[in-house]
Amino acid sequence: MAPVTAPHPLPGFPRATVDGYAVRAADTYGTGDGLPGYLDVAGAVQMGAEPDVVVRPGTAVLMPTGGVLPAGADAVIMVEYTQQAMPGTIEVVRPVAPGDGVVRADEDAAAGAELVPAGRPLRAQDLGMLAAAGITQPTVHAHPRVTIFSTGDEVVPPQTAELRPGQVRDATAIALAALVIQAGGQPHRAGIIPDDAVALEAALRAALETSDLIVISAGSSVGARDETATAVERLGLPGIWCHGLAIKPGKPTLLAECAGVPVIGLPGNPRSALVVFRLIGMPLLRRIGGCTAPPAEPIVQAKLERDLASATGRLDVVQVRLRDGVAIPIFGLSALLSVLVAADGYLVIAADATGLEAGSEVEVTLYR
Amino acid sequence: MAPVTAPHPLPGFPRATVDGYAVRAADTYGTGDGLPGYLDVAGAVQMGAEPDVVVRPGTAVLMPTGGVLPAGADAVIMVEYTQQAMPGTIEVVRPVAPGDGVVRADEDAAAGAELVPAGRPLRAQDLGMLAAAGITQPTVHAHPRVTIFSTGDEVVPPQTAELRPGQVRDATAIALAALVIQAGGQPHRAGIIPDDAVALEAALRAALETSDLIVISAGSSVGARDETATAVERLGLPGIWCHGLAIKPGKPTLLAECAGVPVIGLPGNPRSALVVFRLIGMPLLRRIGGCTAPPAEPIVQAKLERDLASATGRLDVVQVRLRDGVAIPIFGLSALLSVLVAADGYLVIAADATGLEAGSEVEVTLYR
Repeated sequence: MAPVTAPHPLPGFPRATVDGYAVRAADTYGTGDGLPGYLDVAGAVQMGAEPDVVVRPGTAVLMPTGGVLPAGADAVIMVEYTQQAMPGTIEVVRPVAPGDGVVRADEDAAAGAELVPAGRPLRAQDLGMLAAAGITQPTVHAHPRVTIFSTGDEVVPPQTAELRPGQVRDATAIALAALVIQAGGQPHRAGIIPDDAVALEAALRAALETSDLIVISAGSSVGARDETATAVERLGLPGIWCHGLAIKPGKPTLLAECAGVPVIGLPGNPRSALVVFRLIGMPLLRRIGGCTAPPAEPIVQAKLERDLASATGRLDVVQVRLRDGVAIPIFGLSALLSVLVAADGYLVIAADATGLEAGSEVEVTLYR
Repeated sequence: MAPVTAPHPLPGFPRATVDGYAVRAADTYGTGDGLPGYLDVAGAVQMGAEPDVVVRPGTAVLMPTGGVLPAGADAVIMVEYTQQAMPGTIEVVRPVAPGDGVVRADEDAAAGAELVPAGRPLRAQDLGMLAAAGITQPTVHAHPRVTIFSTGDEVVPPQTAELRPGQVRDATAIALAALVIQAGGQPHRAGIIPDDAVALEAALRAALETSDLIVISAGSSVGARDETATAVERLGLPGIWCHGLAIKPGKPTLLAECAGVPVIGLPGNPRSALVVFRLIGMPLLRRIGGCTAPPAEPIVQAKLERDLASATGRLDVVQVRLRDGVAIPIFGLSALLSVLVAADGYLVIAADATGLEAGSEVEVTLYR
């Protein structure tokens, strides 16, 4: 969102924060339970209307919470600290200071003050603040358009009722679409492209025009990955930034920029693809969408249940279950989506670590 | 979501997890760098197709990652541990065990196994798992319908360009709608009702039919609150559960059930209303929506910057900024939305505590 400033002070008028009587604070000084002060009730303020009375020395005006403080008054005394002495007169049994029981006309926001900072998704209270200022159509970043391709001769649409031997349904595209939405993007699932560099290049080229980010869930075989790289290389400059990341799972990842559009080639295994897209694709997507101050990831501290080995020079992403503050690693091949489904979150073993010891304190990022 | 089981094993066939050669593991035993074994290449498996070759003793079949393991083979040896000895023959320089390089036909899910547990929102990987099983239209709970009323003679729609003295724009309804969506509900903003028990009762009664939850952002004055209570009391049995909660801010909260529909009467101050709806409304709404295992709240540990006083017998909700692991309380009247906008999250002081000391470890629930 672009920064938004208050067009006028908020709430815009001095406003009672309690039910009671608008008074001149000085008229209450020295009062107490044994020494009440007496004030004449000069009238009452109606909700949502300008007061038609003024508070003069020795008088009080009945106030509802949220009403406009009448001229002459500088405080509101709670009704609990008053009582009716006789018709038209109240006793005051506690002193108030100027400003007590009142919110200033510009206390929620001064005119021109920043109402909501730019660069973060609008939260519930931010929308409320904008509404209070009459801003119902703030200027926001467009949702980045993310085109998602799947490749692989073995991949068929999820709707396929009967699989032929060797076929698998496309599990990655729908899951990526969900992560794209979570990161503020607008996913377009562009379907499944056969393992053919020419067909892939044509599909990618067509998508360049309508995409702020292109994501390819690459075929799982080396041949399919090579064809993806070939097709991406032909798309435009500056081309491929890197091919292969020191992440496990997720090594066969390709990052590129073609004709101004970032392109992410994800591993063929659904689990690896989702791990990499969370680590790299979602932060990139947030940045593309103008979110420079993304919400903090939900992270909990936990004790590691068992030793975890790790090779140095590589980031390891390990899925875990959480039970009573203990992080229980879930092992399984990177081809297995069930590992991700069973997990409550994941931990990351840093590239320079050789592993983590049982009982050590770890940070688990929660899946949601 | 209702529990979903696998209609067939997944991936559904024994599948190579590496690029290499399908072999009988026994044919590789005893091999090593100085003692290669030799295997005849009997053919190649194509992606997405049933193998048209069988692996017999002394033979190997070229395998792409993700291909179907041919009959006769029980492992796949990575291409890195082989080399071509002569056309049609490979050298194997490392032994493999049965199962190496292969994911079993039911390793991701056995037929009939629970794919995704019921009672939690579907995450990205859950959608992927369902897609892998061909389930593209799972049975899910409907979004609970939440009707949101605002009351108060001083409250005008957020679109109002010019305010008359004493008027305030409705900031609460749009913010509540955002929280309703976050908790899985479908909000319906039913507008602003004047401070009039008859009008309010009529509006609430009409909403009973079409709502799974009714939320009233009550007028801020005692009179308006009393009218809300009167209107709710007339709606139906069992009626009002409680009127007044030991929460700060949020004391003037009304909880009721009328003709089977839960009703929440929130305080008139937007900030109080949003605090209470997060603590009480959102968990209730998730439960109504069938979410028995809600995602964990994003909570971080922090050190409290300064002493916080608190009255016993009352839960205190304190908004904080987070800076380098320090929770800095933000003070301000409960009428001020700006306190919520400035906050990164909140901490709760338990009802039996008299306060928290500077430097103590606190849990901050992040706003998002």
